[in-house]
Amino acid sequence: MGIIDSIGAGVTNFKPGDHVLISCISSCGKCEYCRRGLYSHCTTGGWILGNEIDGTQAEYVRTPHADTSLYPIPANSDEEALVMLSDILPTGFECGVLNGKVAPGSTVAIVGAGPIGLAALLTAQFYSPAKLIMIDLDDKRLTAAKIFGASQTINSASGTAAAEVKALTDGKGVDTAIEAVGVPATFVLCQDIIAPGGIIANIGVHGSKADLHLEKLWSHNISITTRLVDTVTTPMLLKTVQSNRINPAQLITHRFCLDQIIEAYDIFSRAADTGALKVIIAA
Amino acid sequence: MGIIDSIGAGVTNFKPGDHVLISCISSCGKCEYCRRGLYSHCTTGGWILGNEIDGTQAEYVRTPHADTSLYPIPANSDEEALVMLSDILPTGFECGVLNGKVAPGSTVAIVGAGPIGLAALLTAQFYSPAKLIMIDLDDKRLTAAKIFGASQTINSASGTAAAEVKALTDGKGVDTAIEAVGVPATFVLCQDIIAPGGIIANIGVHGSKADLHLEKLWSHNISITTRLVDTVTTPMLLKTVQSNRINPAQLITHRFCLDQIIEAYDIFSRAADTGALKVIIAA
Amino acid sequence: MGIIDSIGAGVTNFKPGDHVLISCISSCGKCEYCRRGLYSHCTTGGWILGNEIDGTQAEYVRTPHADTSLYPIPANSDEEALVMLSDILPTGFECGVLNGKVAPGSTVAIVGAGPIGLAALLTAQFYSPAKLIMIDLDDKRLTAAKIFGASQTINSASGTAAAEVKALTDGKGVDTAIEAVGVPATFVLCQDIIAPGGIIANIGVHGSKADLHLEKLWSHNISITTRLVDTVTTPMLLKTVQSNRINPAQLITHRFCLDQIIEAYDIFSRAADTGALKVIIAA
Amino acid sequence: MGIIDSIGAGVTNFKPGDHVLISCISSCGKCEYCRRGLYSHCTTGGWILGNEIDGTQAEYVRTPHADTSLYPIPANSDEEALVMLSDILPTGFECGVLNGKVAPGSTVAIVGAGPIGLAALLTAQFYSPAKLIMIDLDDKRLTAAKIFGASQTINSASGTAAAEVKALTDGKGVDTAIEAVGVPATFVLCQDIIAPGGIIANIGVHGSKADLHLEKLWSHNISITTRLVDTVTTPMLLKTVQSNRINPAQLITHRFCLDQIIEAYDIFSRAADTGALKVIIAA
Repeated sequence: MGIIDSIGAGVTNFKPGDHVLISCISSCGKCEYCRRGLYSHCTTGGWILGNEIDGTQAEYVRTPHADTSLYPIPANSDEEALVMLSDILPTGFECGVLNGKVAPGSTVAIVGAGPIGLAALLTAQFYSPAKLIMIDLDDKRLTAAKIFGASQTINSASGTAAAEVKALTDGKGVDTAIEAVGVPATFVLCQDIIAPGGIIANIGVHGSKADLHLEKLWSHNISITTRLVDTVTTPMLLKTVQSNRINPAQLITHRFCLDQIIEAYDIFSRAADTGALKVIIAA
Repeated sequence: MGIIDSIGAGVTNFKPGDHVLISCISSCGKCEYCRRGLYSHCTTGGWILGNEIDGTQAEYVRTPHADTSLYPIPANSDEEALVMLSDILPTGFECGVLNGKVAPGSTVAIVGAGPIGLAALLTAQFYSPAKLIMIDLDDKRLTAAKIFGASQTINSASGTAAAEVKALTDGKGVDTAIEAVGVPATFVLCQDIIAPGGIIANIGVHGSKADLHLEKLWSHNISITTRLVDTVTTPMLLKTVQSNRINPAQLITHRFCLDQIIEAYDIFSRAADTGALKVIIAA
Repeated sequence: MGIIDSIGAGVTNFKPGDHVLISCISSCGKCEYCRRGLYSHCTTGGWILGNEIDGTQAEYVRTPHADTSLYPIPANSDEEALVMLSDILPTGFECGVLNGKVAPGSTVAIVGAGPIGLAALLTAQFYSPAKLIMIDLDDKRLTAAKIFGASQTINSASGTAAAEVKALTDGKGVDTAIEAVGVPATFVLCQDIIAPGGIIANIGVHGSKADLHLEKLWSHNISITTRLVDTVTTPMLLKTVQSNRINPAQLITHRFCLDQIIEAYDIFSRAADTGALKVIIAA
Repeated sequence: MGIIDSIGAGVTNFKPGDHVLISCISSCGKCEYCRRGLYSHCTTGGWILGNEIDGTQAEYVRTPHADTSLYPIPANSDEEALVMLSDILPTGFECGVLNGKVAPGSTVAIVGAGPIGLAALLTAQFYSPAKLIMIDLDDKRLTAAKIFGASQTINSASGTAAAEVKALTDGKGVDTAIEAVGVPATFVLCQDIIAPGGIIANIGVHGSKADLHLEKLWSHNISITTRLVDTVTTPMLLKTVQSNRINPAQLITHRFCLDQIIEAYDIFSRAADTGALKVIIAA
């Protein structure tokens, strides 16, 4: 979220003073990948802000490919809430909900009730699934998940999460399992709870390989998807916020000024204690 | 909705005493069309109940292709509400909402706020569109539509409905226009309000041809769909009712016993006066 | 098809001397429609070359939105053949074949064996349909259609085309009917030959409205699509030419120099006599 | 392939004397999975012939769920060729080609040039991909693959198969990688050659788990699919054979009578020496 200060040569969609949403993904709009909607693999962009170049926790930010990486904000918007549309909501929605093909009446399990898992939980409700089961090790997060719309919660510390999911789904498993943690154990759990014909939609950022139990799954007609968010759905998500179909402000637990940023990171790093979900840094 | 009294040879899915939902479409499950999900065109079934053979307003009903045309009702269901799943809800959902590809953040207009239009209105909300504009000539029905979830209503008696829809959609028109009346004028209205790339999903039962303005629409990248309900979504809809994602009982305005059926038809035939939407006849 | 002479400010994908294919559709790559793949409705482009601004029958051409409206041509290409990818092949492919969902084993009728109909015929074969029935009034064109891959041809002068299509399809009609003429009579013929569950894909540029027989079609589960070509498939088509899956040069019947352009138009305007399909004007 | 001798009670689609194709998958047509097109998971059928019950290498065969598991053969068909449609062709087509979304102009690699890999190779050509790269350890099979339509072949004994695929695809990898072996090493090879946005379609029957390199693939926007063949495409494949879009007889290398079955198995078990692909046993 920001206000345009000055524009580079060739930028036509924006002018100084415009309030804009800054996408976490930069997209040139011209390369083969951008033309196919795979902005995350833009040959001169993608996930570069805060990764390969300086990010947005600053008073002034240079945005590459501005015409196709910024989104105009309608007047009278809750700009703080729209910060959630820069990264976390499209990530949960595209990588989890869209890839997972959540549908009316379907059964969904989300493994991991951190901010990304909750973003998937919020946006999964766009499609009216019958069951939205949230799985985590932390009871506080599961309590939050209930408030955010989970139909059931399971604390996986018990070691019986897979059996509990089966019990909730007539022994079949879920149509969609969303992996929102990024470790081998949770990815294997998704394999244990997926129904024939189902989809495992990975959101987690993994640091190591995982076991894929093809000796069981080869005949189960399942799909596994991975995705770095493309933010192709940012305009769609903006419309759902405008029409009050979703309230992204729910994800914001703390607010700081830019000169409190060290404290903000401390709070965020101790999320289990502080209950932090998303933290706003205001200039 | 009924209770199985006796079963024919070869029926394996049901037994006497089972409570079942009777679909308006009979499907053999074996023919080319049934195998493709086009139950409405089943070569020995389709829409035959109450059309080509006796229907269900009776104490005893013979159901052809029972194994694949009846649906088991879970214990403790609101069976009266489930009567809405025999015909009207799958019709609004399949012909209007699914064919019309209603999506999160999209704009939808439904022309006709009778029971079928309201069924489309209820089920369109499974997909969280940004705007759900209801158009009718009758203010009472439009008031009902507001209660059922319309975001805006337009009384088309003014003759300015198309202009009003354009004004509500930044001049673009809607992504989905659902025709739920069945006369040439309403079908033409849908052509006037559809945005480039949009879909006109016809539900109406038409008695005569209509004008299609290809001189304008040839370059507008639109689709027009027609459909006799297939009731392929009945299991999905049952799950949405079980999980309280939809409340079909909202559509029921009157209840009668079988020996009051003449009165019931009278009430139903004067819907504009009586406010009747759907009428339940109980044995 | 052209060679870049000089580039405007901000153009990054091309440099002088590059050989490029000039798309008939100009796309900014930035607007809502371009981002959705609807280049035909680009808010500052679309079909403007040769329509709203000067076209390409000239020694020098200015191309708006060059980065996203030109396509690089691989070395050693048959550049003359690639001229067919500027307009006619993507038109037949996108508006007819893709919209019509031609599929392996399906039945297809193409009404109109002019250049556009033949482009649909050529590209329909990408999907291996079982029947590709070509319908026209001109036996010479039908003979060409046979050479281009039609499995059957019907001269509709007889007035029995619909019955003949039915006879070729076990009485069912075709899964896909492609309208490649643009007059009411041929659009009605498509309605007469479409099978339940089928698609009528309109390519024709219509000058007047047509009758839509909803009194019959409301229950036939069909779709009708219209489309101004988007040329989103140009990269895909280039790959099919490179890999010899299609030979667009088949469509070229005559070649002229730019100073013979009057003669070229004369030949093209008397196609019935001259057998002209597509005519190349070389600088 | 067989001739009906007698029919069970309730069978309506067939009569004694009919020539029929016997699908490897039995489908009741009534259960939740059959209704969704997942015949492989039919609750009273699926892959049972020759697996859970006696198979078809016999003079007389009892077929469960006959109405929905047999397919009528048109008169004058090459019945021997149609044996290939019982299992191997739908397997290669559904699990490999359809799940892998092979498309005009796309790049495809098939790992494993045994009969199943060749079935995928034959049916992939329905969709006119630009490149069809066949990978195997056996040069004889790769020679066969060339004859069957491979555009390039790679002998993976070199250990450089991944690099060779990258070299053939401008460094990007393939849009579709079809795994037709069923061991961990070939599944890992598929992960090494898949392009961003691509699909790994598994056909292989795996006996053990495999490594999934999520530490690399989490951000590559890929899909992995598994599938036990459903044989939902058998009618489609029959039409492609009838219309000469495919010649399944190419897969048949040997023919035996039923009393030579021991010899037939011997030949088939030494495929590397005998060059056996598929072997016909005639009664």
